[in-house]
Amino acid sequence: METNNIANEIATTTSVISSEALLAHWQGHRKLSRKVIEAFPEDQFYTYSIGGMRTFAQLTMEMIGLAAPGIRGVVFGDWTFTEPVLDSSTPAPATKAEVLNLWDLVTEYIDHLWPQIPAQRFQETEAAFGQYENTIIGTILYLIDNEIHHRAQGYVYLRALGIEPPFFWDRY
Amino acid sequence: METNNIANEIATTTSVISSEALLAHWQGHRKLSRKVIEAFPEDQFYTYSIGGMRTFAQLTMEMIGLAAPGIRGVVFGDWTFTEPVLDSSTPAPATKAEVLNLWDLVTEYIDHLWPQIPAQRFQETEAAFGQYENTIIGTILYLIDNEIHHRAQGYVYLRALGIEPPFFWDRY
Repeated sequence: METNNIANEIATTTSVISSEALLAHWQGHRKLSRKVIEAFPEDQFYTYSIGGMRTFAQLTMEMIGLAAPGIRGVVFGDWTFTEPVLDSSTPAPATKAEVLNLWDLVTEYIDHLWPQIPAQRFQETEAAFGQYENTIIGTILYLIDNEIHHRAQGYVYLRALGIEPPFFWDRY
Repeated sequence: METNNIANEIATTTSVISSEALLAHWQGHRKLSRKVIEAFPEDQFYTYSIGGMRTFAQLTMEMIGLAAPGIRGVVFGDWTFTEPVLDSSTPAPATKAEVLNLWDLVTEYIDHLWPQIPAQRFQETEAAFGQYENTIIGTILYLIDNEIHHRAQGYVYLRALGIEPPFFWDRY
C-alpha cells in the first residue's frame, strides 16, 4: 500500500526533468553563448550596439555576473556579493580572451557546485539576490532564460555586422 | 524494501520541475511574447528587419507554427502537417489582430492538450517533426527556448524603433 501511495504521488506530480538533465541543458546553452562571444570581432564586442542597448561585452558580464553568484545562492542560500564584486555591473576584462577565461571558470564553478544542491532545495522559495522572490527552480530557469534572451541580442548584432552566428541548436 | 527502492530511485533522479509547473512556465513566456507582438506598430510588425533577418510577423508565425503541431506531436506522436498547413512557413494573417487571435487559439490548444501528455512520455525519444531526434522533454524545452530566442530579436527591433519593450519578467 505504501508503495502504491508513493507511486500515486509520483504520477500526480509528474517529474519532467531531472537535476542532472537540467544542468546539462544549462551548460549546453552556455556552450552556445561562448560560441557567440567567440564570433564577435574583438572591437565590436566592446563597442557595437543597436537602439541604445548594451554592448555584447556588457551583456556577457551580466550572464557571468548572474550565473556565478546565482549558483552560489542556489546551493548555499548566500546571496551577498563579496569583494572583489562579480555582479552584472562588473566591467568586462580588457580582452575577449580574458572574458572567455572568466566564462570557463564559471562553467567549472557551476559543475562543481550543482551536485551539492539538496534535492528538496529546488522547490524552496527564497528571494534570489536578496530581492527576487521565487522558487529555486524558478530562479534557475530565470538565469537560463535571461541568458538565451540576451544572447539573442548578440545574434542580431552579429547579423547586423554581416557575421553568421552559430546555429541555435549547436550546444556542444 | 520495495518502498525504499522507489524512494532511492527518486533521490538519485531528483525531480526539479513538475509537468504542471512547466506548462505554467511555457504559458508565462507565451504571455510575454504576446505583449511583444502587441508592442509593435502594425506596419513595422510586417516590414521591419535588421541584418536581413525575418520580420517579427514571420518570427511570430514560426512560434505559432512550432507550438501548435509541436504540442500535438508531444501528446499524440503525430508529427505530420495536415491541410490547412500551419507550420513555420505559413504566411502571417493580414492584421495583427488576426495574428493575436491565432495566438490565443494556440494558447487554448496547449492548455487543452497538455494534461493529456502521459507521465512516461516526457522521457521517450522521438524524432520531433519527423526529423529532430530528441527526448520529448528536450523537444518541449527547445520550443520554449526557440520562442525566447526569436522574441528577443523582437526586443532589438522595438529598441531600434525607439519603442520600450515589455519587461522580461512580465509574464502575467
